Amino acid sequence: MTQETPTTFGYLLYPGFALLDVCGPLEIFNALSALVSIQMSLIALDSLEPVSTCVSPDSIPGFKGSSMEKMLPMNTLEQKITPTHTLDTVPELDVLIIPGGFGGLAASQNPKVLNFIKSTKARHILTVCNGSPVLAATGLLDGHKATTNKWLYETLVASRPQVNWVAKARWVHDGRFWTSSGVSAGMDLASAYVREIYGEKIGELVTDIIEYTPELNPDNDPFCGVYKKYPPEALQDL
Amino acid sequence: MTQETPTTFGYLLYPGFALLDVCGPLEIFNALSALVSIQMSLIALDSLEPVSTCVSPDSIPGFKGSSMEKMLPMNTLEQKITPTHTLDTVPELDVLIIPGGFGGLAASQNPKVLNFIKSTKARHILTVCNGSPVLAATGLLDGHKATTNKWLYETLVASRPQVNWVAKARWVHDGRFWTSSGVSAGMDLASAYVREIYGEKIGELVTDIIEYTPELNPDNDPFCGVYKKYPPEALQDL
Repeated sequence: MTQETPTTFGYLLYPGFALLDVCGPLEIFNALSALVSIQMSLIALDSLEPVSTCVSPDSIPGFKGSSMEKMLPMNTLEQKITPTHTLDTVPELDVLIIPGGFGGLAASQNPKVLNFIKSTKARHILTVCNGSPVLAATGLLDGHKATTNKWLYETLVASRPQVNWVAKARWVHDGRFWTSSGVSAGMDLASAYVREIYGEKIGELVTDIIEYTPELNPDNDPFCGVYKKYPPEALQDL
Repeated sequence: MTQETPTTFGYLLYPGFALLDVCGPLEIFNALSALVSIQMSLIALDSLEPVSTCVSPDSIPGFKGSSMEKMLPMNTLEQKITPTHTLDTVPELDVLIIPGGFGGLAASQNPKVLNFIKSTKARHILTVCNGSPVLAATGLLDGHKATTNKWLYETLVASRPQVNWVAKARWVHDGRFWTSSGVSAGMDLASAYVREIYGEKIGELVTDIIEYTPELNPDNDPFCGVYKKYPPEALQDL
């Protein structure tokens, strides 16, 4: 570990974030914080009120009646996490983390979110699930390799064809950007990030503490094409 | 699926709960809620203020200067989740879920928590990590098979020798009780619970949606004895 390792992290929290997109990687950074001095800002859009995992379909431009709405019924349970900052008050970050979830579909069309991401000086930007299409909407990912959620893969990658999307990847690291596949893949991305940046020894200890066996091979993606297992009629038949 | 499947779930949230002990299984129940009508109460001890993942070592009886304090440095990052109920207001539950974390060490000595667990009529009680010693402190687990966190295993099982503790298990199902190994093992327990109760088809869909490969064999526990890899001097040497 050198003096150059990142110490200031920030996690975007928009309404409708997917719970594990945030809390999976966060638990890895929690364990890291017992070993290394780091700070973590939880960044709401506009206010310090707790941010909900739920979002109204009406608040996502173009969602209602879309193929995405048909493919993925919405969760009905709700949780709320308390932010520490807003987009306007967050300090300079070394690392910005962008989650997905239904709220990510709205965030990728929210100029305030996109301007924040575009202007961050963060050395590393990590995304989980459909957080990468949010990042991609800024143009920053153009010409870079990246991956995203595999359930809505075709629709998500079509939103920004200038990105070199990788269909079969648990996560992809390209330069400043680390992007993961869907939801739980964020834990493998965060594990890989900690090993790369803070070293194998700390990386292994962190996942041992939380009794997690991380996928170490970024190309091992069992969920590539997963949506083909579930044509709409299969979902009707549950 | 029959009419008899559980619909009302409750998750204990005490100060110092481990984030992923709660949010890992919760994300699985979130995905389930898109397919099956269920409710989830998040149960704080005394008030509806957001509950913190951090707890002062002074608030855990017997913790300071103990072998546990030496073995496991505390996280410094903090998150807060908003509860929906308190122990006094939560409705009758079909399923009670008990997380661990440093707060679990205090909860296992809190008469109000133990009385609540003892008096619940929940058909199923699930525990994650050192949530099982909290359940065990009520006496309900006596004579039952159970497992718990593998980092502090020796200390935790010594707190209630009347339980038939299983050292090598990712999770254990015995009658009314489902207990898991540490932190991330809760996701495998929740996956197994959903498959058992709601059927293989829904169980597989739920973990496919969140791109999670669950451990299906409860006896496959790579973290049995994990603490032996890290004698105290190894932790000093990071």
